[in-house]
Amino acid sequence: MISYKLAFLGFGNVGQALARLLLRKMETLQNRYGLTFTVTAIATSRRGNVVHSQGVDLSQVLHAVDSGGNLAQFPTRPISDTVEWLHACDADVLFESIPVNYETGQPAVNYLEMALRRGMHAISANKGPVVHAYRHLTELAQAHGVEYRFESAVMDGAPIFSLAREALPAVDVHRLRGILNSTTNLILERMQAGETLEEAVAYAQSIGIAETDPRGDLDGWDAAVKVAALCTVVLGAPLKPQQVERQGILGITPADIARARQSGQRWKLVCEAYWENGVLRARVAPSLVGPESPLFGVQGTSSMLTLETDVLPGLTIIEGNPGTETTAYGMLADFLNAVKMHPKR
Amino acid sequence: MISYKLAFLGFGNVGQALARLLLRKMETLQNRYGLTFTVTAIATSRRGNVVHSQGVDLSQVLHAVDSGGNLAQFPTRPISDTVEWLHACDADVLFESIPVNYETGQPAVNYLEMALRRGMHAISANKGPVVHAYRHLTELAQAHGVEYRFESAVMDGAPIFSLAREALPAVDVHRLRGILNSTTNLILERMQAGETLEEAVAYAQSIGIAETDPRGDLDGWDAAVKVAALCTVVLGAPLKPQQVERQGILGITPADIARARQSGQRWKLVCEAYWENGVLRARVAPSLVGPESPLFGVQGTSSMLTLETDVLPGLTIIEGNPGTETTAYGMLADFLNAVKMHPKR
Repeated sequence: MISYKLAFLGFGNVGQALARLLLRKMETLQNRYGLTFTVTAIATSRRGNVVHSQGVDLSQVLHAVDSGGNLAQFPTRPISDTVEWLHACDADVLFESIPVNYETGQPAVNYLEMALRRGMHAISANKGPVVHAYRHLTELAQAHGVEYRFESAVMDGAPIFSLAREALPAVDVHRLRGILNSTTNLILERMQAGETLEEAVAYAQSIGIAETDPRGDLDGWDAAVKVAALCTVVLGAPLKPQQVERQGILGITPADIARARQSGQRWKLVCEAYWENGVLRARVAPSLVGPESPLFGVQGTSSMLTLETDVLPGLTIIEGNPGTETTAYGMLADFLNAVKMHPKR
Repeated sequence: MISYKLAFLGFGNVGQALARLLLRKMETLQNRYGLTFTVTAIATSRRGNVVHSQGVDLSQVLHAVDSGGNLAQFPTRPISDTVEWLHACDADVLFESIPVNYETGQPAVNYLEMALRRGMHAISANKGPVVHAYRHLTELAQAHGVEYRFESAVMDGAPIFSLAREALPAVDVHRLRGILNSTTNLILERMQAGETLEEAVAYAQSIGIAETDPRGDLDGWDAAVKVAALCTVVLGAPLKPQQVERQGILGITPADIARARQSGQRWKLVCEAYWENGVLRARVAPSLVGPESPLFGVQGTSSMLTLETDVLPGLTIIEGNPGTETTAYGMLADFLNAVKMHPKR
C-alpha cells in the first residue's frame, strides 16, 4: 500500500466535492490501486489554511466547512500567503481549483509552476493555465518527473484529454466541433420553451449554473477559452482565446427563436476548430440545428464534442447532465493516472 | 529507434487495411513513437503463408493480394498448419483477424493463447475470444509480460475498451446502453424510408456490410455477442452471448414501421445491460425512439454506447460512419498501447 500526501489549493464547491469523492472512493483506491492518502495541506481564500505533515481528518474539515466555519481548529503553521503555503505544504499532489483570470491564466499558472518545481503532480480544474501555459507546464512536469493534468478543464470530468492524448495514438485530428458551454445551452433551451433571455438567465443563476455576472457565458467567452484549450492540446496548435472568432447568444432575437420552433430546429452555441490549407480556424457562434444533427439532442447542461480524424471519420463524446462531482471526478482520474505514470517508490 | 516484428494471422479485408494503415503511418510511428516494424509472417486461408525472419516487403504483399494472386513469390518455410506457422513466426506482435465460431471463440482462442505463451502481444479484432476467454487470456498475457488487446472487437476502432479500462479509473459502471450492430441499424433506416426488409438486406449486402447469410445480424446474435463482451470487460461480469435476452428485427412489421414514421419516431435495435439488485440483466431488442433520444440520430452504419456510472451520470460515445480502416485503426492503437506498456529493451 502506497500512501500519497495531498494538498488542496482552493476548497470551494469543486475542492469540497473532490474531498467527499476521495472519502467515498477510499476503499476502491485501496483495493484496486493499492493506494491510500492523507491530506497535508489546504488553502482557502476566506476560511484560513491547514498545513500539517501528519495529515488532517478530511471528514472533520468538510464538517467544519459545511457548517459555515473556518479551519482555525486544525493544525497549521504561520502562513502569510499562497507562495509560503506552497513552500510549507509537504505533498505529492496538488489539486488546484482557484479562480483565475482567463486573459492571463494567473495566478494559477505561477502556483502550478511552483508545485511542479517542488516535485508535486499538478492537477488543475482550470482552463486558464491550459491556454496560457500548456507547453511550459508540460515540459516543466517532464523535467521534474511528475505530471501536469487538467481533465476537468473542459467538459467537466468527461475524459476528453485522456481520450485524445492516450486512447487515440497516431491519430491526426482535422476538426473538432461541439457544445462546450452548458449555461448558454440551458438558456437557449428555456428560451425556446417560451422564456425571455432574462427569465432563462435568472433560472440558470437560481440553480447555480450561471454566475452573478453571466456575460462570460452569454458573449461566448467561456466557450472560446475552451476551444482554445482544445486546439492547444488536441490539435497541437497553441491558440489564445482572443484568437477565436466569437459571437455569443445575445444577438438571437425572439423572432429567431420563433422561427426555430416553427421549423422543428434548435439554436445551439456551436464551437468549432479546423485546419484549412494549413491555417487553423476557430470559432464560437450560434447555429440552427435540426433533429438529424447529433447536436440537437444535447439538452440541459450536457455538452458534446466531435473529433474528425484521419482514421476515425467522426468520434463523438457526450457528457450527460454533469454536476460538481463530475468535475471532481476528473481531478481524481488525473491523480490516479499521474501516479500510474510515475509510481512512488 | 526500436524495431518490432509483426505477424498477421488472417489477411482479409481487416488485415489488408491494417497493412495499408501501417505503411501510411510509418513516418508518424517513427517520429512520434520512435518505432519501426518489419512483417515477418503472414498466414492466410487461401493464399498461402509467409515466414521470413528478415521481413517481407509489405507493399509488394499488398500488391500481390490486390491483383488476386497468392503469396507464393515470398519467402517462407514448409508449414502445414497454423500451429506450425505460429511456432515458426518469430514476431513480437500477432495481429489476429480470422473467422471465429461465436459459440466457442475458436479457433482464435487457441491461437491467441499460443502467441501469448510465446511472448507475443496478441492483438485481436475478434469478439469471440473476449466473451469466451477474456480472463484467461488476460492473465496469461500478464504472466508472460505482454498484452492481450481487442479494441476493434466492438464499435470498430472507437476506443471503447481503452476508455472504460484506462481513462475512467475508479469508476463503477451501473448500466450500458447503445446501438452496436450497424447492419440492422442501416436496414431499419432503409425500411423506414420505404424499402422492404428484403430490399434493405440486399442493399446492405451490396455495399459489403451484411453477410451472404445475414441471420446473425437480423436475429440480434451479433449484437448479443457484443453486449456479452462489454459486460465481461466493462462491467467486470463475465457473460456468455447465450445469456443475453435476445429479440432481433424480424418481428418488426410494415405496420410497425408505418406507425413509427407517422409519429416521427424510429426503430432501433437497442442493446442494454445493467445491474438490478446485484443481478446483471442484459438484452438486445428493437425499441421505438424519438428525437429527444441520443439514439435517434445514430444513422447509417454508425454506432453508439452510453455508460451510466457512479460519478459520470451519462457518458456517450458515438462512432460515425466507420469503415474497414476504422477497424484496422483499433488494432494499430492496440499495438501502440501494448508496446507503450511493455517497451522492448
